[in-house]
Amino acid sequence: MSVMRYRENPLISVNDVEPSRDDFHVVGVFNPGVAKLGNQTILLLRVAESPNSVNRNSVLTPSMNFDLSSPAMTVRSLDRNEPGLDFSDSRGVFIDNRMIALTSISHFRVARSDDGRHFEIDDNIRFLPQNRAEAWGIEDPRITTINGVYYITYSAVSENGVSVALATTTDFTEFKRESCILPPTNKDVVLFPETIHGQYYALHRPAPSDIGTPDIWVSTSPDLIHWGNHRYLAGVREDSWDSQRIGAGAVPIRTKDGWLVLYHGANRENQYSMGALLLDIDNPGRVMARSRVPFLKPEESYETNGFWGAVVFSCGAIVEDDTIQMYYGAADQSIAGCEVPLKDIFDTF
Amino acid sequence: MSVMRYRENPLISVNDVEPSRDDFHVVGVFNPGVAKLGNQTILLLRVAESPNSVNRNSVLTPSMNFDLSSPAMTVRSLDRNEPGLDFSDSRGVFIDNRMIALTSISHFRVARSDDGRHFEIDDNIRFLPQNRAEAWGIEDPRITTINGVYYITYSAVSENGVSVALATTTDFTEFKRESCILPPTNKDVVLFPETIHGQYYALHRPAPSDIGTPDIWVSTSPDLIHWGNHRYLAGVREDSWDSQRIGAGAVPIRTKDGWLVLYHGANRENQYSMGALLLDIDNPGRVMARSRVPFLKPEESYETNGFWGAVVFSCGAIVEDDTIQMYYGAADQSIAGCEVPLKDIFDTF
Repeated sequence: MSVMRYRENPLISVNDVEPSRDDFHVVGVFNPGVAKLGNQTILLLRVAESPNSVNRNSVLTPSMNFDLSSPAMTVRSLDRNEPGLDFSDSRGVFIDNRMIALTSISHFRVARSDDGRHFEIDDNIRFLPQNRAEAWGIEDPRITTINGVYYITYSAVSENGVSVALATTTDFTEFKRESCILPPTNKDVVLFPETIHGQYYALHRPAPSDIGTPDIWVSTSPDLIHWGNHRYLAGVREDSWDSQRIGAGAVPIRTKDGWLVLYHGANRENQYSMGALLLDIDNPGRVMARSRVPFLKPEESYETNGFWGAVVFSCGAIVEDDTIQMYYGAADQSIAGCEVPLKDIFDTF
Repeated sequence: MSVMRYRENPLISVNDVEPSRDDFHVVGVFNPGVAKLGNQTILLLRVAESPNSVNRNSVLTPSMNFDLSSPAMTVRSLDRNEPGLDFSDSRGVFIDNRMIALTSISHFRVARSDDGRHFEIDDNIRFLPQNRAEAWGIEDPRITTINGVYYITYSAVSENGVSVALATTTDFTEFKRESCILPPTNKDVVLFPETIHGQYYALHRPAPSDIGTPDIWVSTSPDLIHWGNHRYLAGVREDSWDSQRIGAGAVPIRTKDGWLVLYHGANRENQYSMGALLLDIDNPGRVMARSRVPFLKPEESYETNGFWGAVVFSCGAIVEDDTIQMYYGAADQSIAGCEVPLKDIFDTF
């Protein structure tokens, strides 16, 4: 296994990003979508911010209010000593295992690079939560290029659940909201870069509420907006590196042996690693191979010490000369990159 | 309020239905889909069966195995004294609040009536679980008639979750599986009987896993197979008769004031009652009115004493002369019917 992490890692850190408001600070810049625009590498950054706090006994939870004539950020203060409230997970506040608020709110920003390692972040912020389904933030974008249009799938989070939204851009300057393409609870959606037998394909990751586990499903669409023919594709594996939850990361990569899908898996210790699936080129509903072991595990300090957990979590990659350049969120806090020869990923099958 | 329950209630009971196998017994016949075929009233019955048991210390859980060359029923025996297994809900076996097996498996049967009160059940069983997504059974059908075709939406249950499937028929003799139209966890899907501005519409009820509550969403489709534009429509209401979960029941009924949607709501005591929503005739994504109080609550003995809970749960209704004939499952065990003048439902708004 010869994963080469970039020497410059982490490529983008919290300190590289200006908060969007004076009364907020950036707690994480991570899980970026990846695309090529001309010769440049584009990262669509997930920037998570929290309200500045002066009181250690309270937790502030931000959300957007779209019921007003003009949308406004609202911040709730929750008392750490309030009975029944659970603050043990730094990402949110829970009552009876149900999340009632997030401690941060995310939006997207664009970063551009000529060499794939040094990024400049756009000053303008043009991709903020925009409707009620996004009131708690937008997260974890994936970008698929089809006929010159960049299709961005991402998690839209609100008190009504985590759904999947689709937006488009041609220049990463103007973004257009298209639709909510999958209802809650769903995330980790990647669109295939071409039609197969006249249909668009997507992988997604429903999280069932009572029966079932967080597994990867496959679906088809005539138009990228309306989705059907949902089928179970691949599930968590007991006693494996991907035993607790899985989800597709990068857009499927066409290889001569099949569609290569990089995906994350979490184990019982909530350690997130990256492995791969190989799908039939003519029928992505058929799994041909799957990583016995991950090709990337959280090992470096920036991957194990951050906002949350020991995490490598990719939302995008680029292939050149049989080598994958993969970008990933590290410990829900910063962004790193690595290069992996395709054959080394195939060696995990 | 003048709900008239049929004198003949329950219209269909467990004893009216022959089990599909000698080694099974019927535990419930309930939650039927409703349609008119010529002058006849059709009920598509959900028949739930359990394996016959001789050992009081074990619980038998049935499921279909579709991985064999020909599908076969398999029955697992679980020891009531096994640590970690939770048998407190008669409907299933749980580990840590996750259902690992059902104690019954459901299929559909057709019943026909000339007067809407006395039903004959077809001898032939033509609508059984048919694929892996249905391995734990098929449940709670709703029937929408569009251009002479009956579209049946129902819950497909398996170890991979509760998804929504679509089947069609023109005669209730031959049924055709169309597709899985919504991934887990989702149920309570009703299709509108006509297109609106060129789009098909559906109501559905995702059950989010971590954020959100079991609420009703609305979506559109160009072809009834692929669904998108998912939007939150109406949620549970604290301290109300519908505080814990809700879901559309009968196919939306066109009235001069808007689309009338009969829906079930469960309160904190898991009592299921029936109320209604009124939706904008041109934009079903807009709620115009909602029942302050249910128009039907479980009160009769067959509604309060059955397989599970105090439940009235409708999957279908017919409108004639400003009166609704509603059929409903009673206590997850038998089928009842009632008549309600439209104006009495509007009085609950």
